[in-house]
Amino acid sequence: MAVKNTAQVIIGGKIITLGGYESEEYFQKVAVYINNKISEFETMQGYSRQPMETKHMLLELNITDDYFKAKKQAEVFEQDLQQKDQEMYDLKHELVQLRMQIEEAKKQVREAAEQKTEMEGKVAELEKQINELLA
Amino acid sequence: MAVKNTAQVIIGGKIITLGGYESEEYFQKVAVYINNKISEFETMQGYSRQPMETKHMLLELNITDDYFKAKKQAEVFEQDLQQKDQEMYDLKHELVQLRMQIEEAKKQVREAAEQKTEMEGKVAELEKQINELLA
Repeated sequence: MAVKNTAQVIIGGKIITLGGYESEEYFQKVAVYINNKISEFETMQGYSRQPMETKHMLLELNITDDYFKAKKQAEVFEQDLQQKDQEMYDLKHELVQLRMQIEEAKKQVREAAEQKTEMEGKVAELEKQINELLA
Repeated sequence: MAVKNTAQVIIGGKIITLGGYESEEYFQKVAVYINNKISEFETMQGYSRQPMETKHMLLELNITDDYFKAKKQAEVFEQDLQQKDQEMYDLKHELVQLRMQIEEAKKQVREAAEQKTEMEGKVAELEKQINELLA
């Protein structure tokens, strides 16, 4: 069973305790990601003069945008996967048919070889008859 | 060239103007997503008594979690895609080899048929000779 973890992280200069079934590494990753966003905002002109609520709203909108973009990416990959699955199904179907064709062709080659051997026997037999008649 | 759009949305009960190259539909989707998160939090005991900053932090952490999960999902799908590409490459390689095998088998069938015809001619010739000898 999953173990519940807690970790202290620093987000926006404040110590925050995070808890959940994720690893401490994950909590730190979350903190780094949010702190990087805040750092990016701080380089933007006028950001520092914005009220706290506006700053939070900017952050929330920005993270949400990342979320929807990642979600969209996952959907695109999922569609690609479905298409590839269909292509693979078709390829495997073609392989099965080719294998059957090869089996049929090999059978024909075997039958032809048998017929050839039979004919060779017949030729030898007829040549023997001719030699006896000529003797 | 992409057109810059703006849209007024309501997030957490406040009217906010969003701007960017995304569609107005997208801005509304972002607003609905964040509002749903806030609604979920509001059903949690003790949430309403939290300071504004804590509420924002909870929201930011929660959206970030969604983002990392979607990102992870995209990565998993991307790896699956790479694996499927490799499998498809192998399948196509196998197809090419099978097609070559079929060509070779068909050639053998043709050669065997020619040899059979040749032998049949020889048998007919020998039988003619015997009939003449016996006449």
